[in-house]
Amino acid sequence: MTVGILSNDSFGRFAFPIVEALENRLADEGIAVFMCNATDDPARERQHLDQLLGKRIDGLVVTARRSDKRSGIARYVGDMPVIYVFAQSDDPNSLALLPDDEGGARLATEHLIGLGRTRIAHLTGPAHFEAVTLRRRGYEAALAEAGLPLLAGYFRNGKWSEQSGRDAVAALFDGAAEPPDALFCGNDQIARGALDALRDRGIKVPEQVAVVGFDNWDVMVDGARPPLSSIDMNLKALGRDAGDRLIAMIAGERATGVVRLPCTLVVRQSSAGAP
Amino acid sequence: MTVGILSNDSFGRFAFPIVEALENRLADEGIAVFMCNATDDPARERQHLDQLLGKRIDGLVVTARRSDKRSGIARYVGDMPVIYVFAQSDDPNSLALLPDDEGGARLATEHLIGLGRTRIAHLTGPAHFEAVTLRRRGYEAALAEAGLPLLAGYFRNGKWSEQSGRDAVAALFDGAAEPPDALFCGNDQIARGALDALRDRGIKVPEQVAVVGFDNWDVMVDGARPPLSSIDMNLKALGRDAGDRLIAMIAGERATGVVRLPCTLVVRQSSAGAP
Repeated sequence: MTVGILSNDSFGRFAFPIVEALENRLADEGIAVFMCNATDDPARERQHLDQLLGKRIDGLVVTARRSDKRSGIARYVGDMPVIYVFAQSDDPNSLALLPDDEGGARLATEHLIGLGRTRIAHLTGPAHFEAVTLRRRGYEAALAEAGLPLLAGYFRNGKWSEQSGRDAVAALFDGAAEPPDALFCGNDQIARGALDALRDRGIKVPEQVAVVGFDNWDVMVDGARPPLSSIDMNLKALGRDAGDRLIAMIAGERATGVVRLPCTLVVRQSSAGAP
Repeated sequence: MTVGILSNDSFGRFAFPIVEALENRLADEGIAVFMCNATDDPARERQHLDQLLGKRIDGLVVTARRSDKRSGIARYVGDMPVIYVFAQSDDPNSLALLPDDEGGARLATEHLIGLGRTRIAHLTGPAHFEAVTLRRRGYEAALAEAGLPLLAGYFRNGKWSEQSGRDAVAALFDGAAEPPDALFCGNDQIARGALDALRDRGIKVPEQVAVVGFDNWDVMVDGARPPLSSIDMNLKALGRDAGDRLIAMIAGERATGVVRLPCTLVVRQSSAGAP
């Protein structure tokens, strides 16, 4: 048996752990895996699809750089089992596996509330990402449940960059009578920039400000000072689970809809201990 | 026609631009590409090879996490054209394409010498990496040609991490009567850690100490304060070139040996301007 993996992530940071785990899962069953990379080029993608179909694959996994909806490929592949992982399709008959962004944001925010923090800002990426909307929803829900107000200017869109984190700290802390006592950041790069900017100002982390990131990207969380608490999307588990489901689908199971797998919180020094 | 790519990099940071460029080059010729990932597991690699051969591929590209020698696979694939990219084989009849690590290190060191720096330290990774040996050679050759001595303690092995860069700065600068006026770092993470440690000490970059990294990894060089000069291994060019050579080999050309493609220096603020 043979399965194709069609990626638009150029096998980058997000797709890599997914694809690796998926491939291991399938290889354990003796299923051959062929990967193709289309890098958001529809013509290239179509070419890869034709090649995969020519190789008589038994199933297809579609993965992407980000989890927003893309056009489905059902019209090309007919009845062949297809699963979208860290990707979604506009085809209502498709099955998509995604991390639970909203739940992850809720975890992070509840953790900060549990530390006694009451002035928690959320520094995140551009508004047009679905993940940004979902994480905002989790953050706001956790605040509301704890009876905490959403303070003016405490939700901030920006770029997914360290500079964006540094800029947000300047805006929130410089000259503020009552600055934030915690930052929940939409990715680890924003959090990393925020940590550096707090350090520049002599603000102690986690004593004065606790910080939590998102992605649990080893390069960022380990290099940060102090080491950064972060939400892990468990991409390897997502890949293994996709393998399980695809094997079941090849055996005849039919599944559609969106399945969101839980994120986990990894606590490090940036949010460790009491307030 | 179909080409297989066998990777041990889990399609990570180094293999990704190579594989992407290679795939684009081959797709332009209408050649299908199938990628398999073995993650340094010989049994998995053998399984993938069998599957690729079963698909009657016309050529094979082997890539890796690092450029050190690995056991060749000629005994499995017979006369099929094989090219190693960012990887080497112990098979003397193989062809390997690699970045010119020694030349890259020479570029970095000559650039720092050109800024008038005379006390240039080299902070690098573990000694057992071939790239560490080659880059050291380029660094020492550039110093020797400029008539500069290799100062005691100025060549430092460590980990490929930010912490390693911070530790090296502590060792070289704290209490030193005449500390370095330039740092050439074996990767961008070491350089990033060094920049942060210099900043902690109030040492101005590039005015007092100029810093150059290696890899030109966007996440690190753009996030650094100030933005980091770095050596680029031109991995996309390596991938395109591998595609060209493989196409020629499939057409009948026979080539063996090791080809090293030039690195380039990208100057940013960390080494900009006069001393």
